[in-house]
Amino acid sequence: MFRINDNYLKLTAGYLFPEISRRVHAFTQANPALASRVIRCGIGDVTEPLPVAAVTAMHEAVDALSKHDSFRGYPPATGYDFVRRAIADGDFRSRGCIVADDEVFLSDGSKPDASAILEILGPGNRIAISDPVYPVYADTNVMAGNSGPALRGGGYEGFVYLPCTEDNAFAPCPPKEHADVVYLCSPNNPTGSVLDRAALARWVEWAHAHHALILFDAAYADFIRDPSLPQSIYEIEGARRCAIEFRSFSKVGGFTGVRCGYTVVPKELVGAAADGTRVALHDLWMRRWATCSNGVSWPVQCAAAALYSAEGRGQTRALTDFYLANAAILARACTALGLRAFGAANSPYVWVSCPRGLGSWETFDLLLQHAQVVTTPGAGFGRCGEGFIRISAFNSRANVEEVARRIGVLAPAAV
Amino acid sequence: MFRINDNYLKLTAGYLFPEISRRVHAFTQANPALASRVIRCGIGDVTEPLPVAAVTAMHEAVDALSKHDSFRGYPPATGYDFVRRAIADGDFRSRGCIVADDEVFLSDGSKPDASAILEILGPGNRIAISDPVYPVYADTNVMAGNSGPALRGGGYEGFVYLPCTEDNAFAPCPPKEHADVVYLCSPNNPTGSVLDRAALARWVEWAHAHHALILFDAAYADFIRDPSLPQSIYEIEGARRCAIEFRSFSKVGGFTGVRCGYTVVPKELVGAAADGTRVALHDLWMRRWATCSNGVSWPVQCAAAALYSAEGRGQTRALTDFYLANAAILARACTALGLRAFGAANSPYVWVSCPRGLGSWETFDLLLQHAQVVTTPGAGFGRCGEGFIRISAFNSRANVEEVARRIGVLAPAAV
Repeated sequence: MFRINDNYLKLTAGYLFPEISRRVHAFTQANPALASRVIRCGIGDVTEPLPVAAVTAMHEAVDALSKHDSFRGYPPATGYDFVRRAIADGDFRSRGCIVADDEVFLSDGSKPDASAILEILGPGNRIAISDPVYPVYADTNVMAGNSGPALRGGGYEGFVYLPCTEDNAFAPCPPKEHADVVYLCSPNNPTGSVLDRAALARWVEWAHAHHALILFDAAYADFIRDPSLPQSIYEIEGARRCAIEFRSFSKVGGFTGVRCGYTVVPKELVGAAADGTRVALHDLWMRRWATCSNGVSWPVQCAAAALYSAEGRGQTRALTDFYLANAAILARACTALGLRAFGAANSPYVWVSCPRGLGSWETFDLLLQHAQVVTTPGAGFGRCGEGFIRISAFNSRANVEEVARRIGVLAPAAV
Repeated sequence: MFRINDNYLKLTAGYLFPEISRRVHAFTQANPALASRVIRCGIGDVTEPLPVAAVTAMHEAVDALSKHDSFRGYPPATGYDFVRRAIADGDFRSRGCIVADDEVFLSDGSKPDASAILEILGPGNRIAISDPVYPVYADTNVMAGNSGPALRGGGYEGFVYLPCTEDNAFAPCPPKEHADVVYLCSPNNPTGSVLDRAALARWVEWAHAHHALILFDAAYADFIRDPSLPQSIYEIEGARRCAIEFRSFSKVGGFTGVRCGYTVVPKELVGAAADGTRVALHDLWMRRWATCSNGVSWPVQCAAAALYSAEGRGQTRALTDFYLANAAILARACTALGLRAFGAANSPYVWVSCPRGLGSWETFDLLLQHAQVVTTPGAGFGRCGEGFIRISAFNSRANVEEVARRIGVLAPAAV
């Protein structure tokens, strides 16, 4: 009989967010009168309308498809030139980073990119990930066969885990042991921490020493307000020879329902074939896109490009400012209860210590049952996430203010 | 040093369509005065405007994203229920096939799906593909490690090739040797042939006997006009236990630039784990989507659902009728020259024998150089494609009539 991919059988439990959905669904089924009170600060989904520049661009793009003379069929597999240029200019060259237009590969989101990148990497690479971590990095590597079996107590055999705790301000440090590929996410999901220039430079140095690849997820780069913090890994000398960067329009442009992101693969970045030959990842990634995709929807590409217009920039700035103000409100409310709150300053996530004596799923359940607030339990992101919950700032101001009040159920006297 | 996927190094030459683009580009660079005369009947990209129903639905969907109350973020990874229901009803249940809503998985196109499906299959499966074949089936399997090295003269070691020639009316027959996974495409790209009920039933029977998986690509199903021909493999008894079906809106809805397709994975379809356990592919595919994707763009999903409204159905029927009429014009013109033309009746592709003494790339070059008509050389689809070219009927009526005249350069006296 034909064979399935056995690596899938190593995966433990459901993916985190489906599990949260399940618990919320069970709660609202059991308490229908409270269903309308539920406020979701879990999955980190945006709530504010799409920027006007993107809306206008999409309408125009749809109109173009409705007329014979302006109709467009298959897009280039890697994105239209004008979109790639807008991105390379707007996110990199304007900040002094060297990124060529054709090093930008447009996609339908960061999650698919973070998964697809493993297709061009070989088996046998030792993978390093943070703990806590965005579950996609771990799960996709399990599915690709880059791990051993699941470990009791969480995690998988074979991964190098980089603990991120209060002691290191949630910033992963280069490990003592060897690794071939490391995932870095800054601003971090879930902890909201941001790697500064010195920390990123240490990682680049480590990658060169180990001939390792850095997969740098900068999906939240546009939330950085501190000008001393790097928004791209290419702000660090030498990163073009060791790093791939993922970006997303999901949060900066409110594109979670529109679906668009991109990956930067510098041309000088090489990996080793079995015989030791050096092979450019840019060529492999190019081939991957030409063979496995027909590119991104035309109206979506137009919307993405519109975010880089003067009008679009103003609107995305207002959008990220709005969510940052939400984060500040949430962080203040937690601190006022005597809880320790991290992130929030240059990130849309607030990483909050659980009340004394409560685990992260217990805190999640308490907030759901007694405050009808959905958060994300830190343990869902890894062992070092235990003792914390993630509160997402992606919500309306009214909801955020309401959440700030309701989390009073976590006050020491109440728990 | 970190390792790349060595299987990519086995891939021969560029993907077919980039190679065609290269030759057309070289021609227009060398002959700028003739550049505007070039008519593309190569890649099979649609030319007619999007159906009005889809345009209206996309505009409404974009408007919804522009307002707070109707804004939508992350879609379900596998597609909105209303879209899955429209598909399962419209393409399957209305034709007597059993397909549940949640067996339909929405995607951004058939090409990504045909590639991604290999992620849930194990290594060690023996792959059978037609010759000639849509290159994506072969290339993605090479990249996934399911082949040996490239063979001199074309093809790859380890694949079971199913010759499709004039002798078998271009209908692949079950092989005598064992295979674990077989790709079938009907109506066929590139030959335009359609598997009838008896032929498909033989394949289903063979799959059961070999515990093999059929990957059925029905991207062109909506071009079938002969009511005796099956549009879905699920019209065949037993197919739910051995077949996955891929569909695309690219051609029926003119969606090549919009990007949407879907895959049907029946729940009773199982494959074997290493220890012999039976595992449902539906569970694996579900997990794959939840982990590796955030689903399809909201306006795109709305456009897809709109194709199933009464208005949408009339418009897609008119669109496929239009391209079928083009195909008939092209087939007649070829036949009038004494060439043998296949397909065209229930398919948008015309598969044409090359003039005596000319190979398929020679015929391609001759048509480009002397008629400025871009076709696809049969050899690009496999060894058995040699001696044929594929002419796509996806063009305006004026262009198709012009092509019908210009291919007179292939007349015996002219060659």
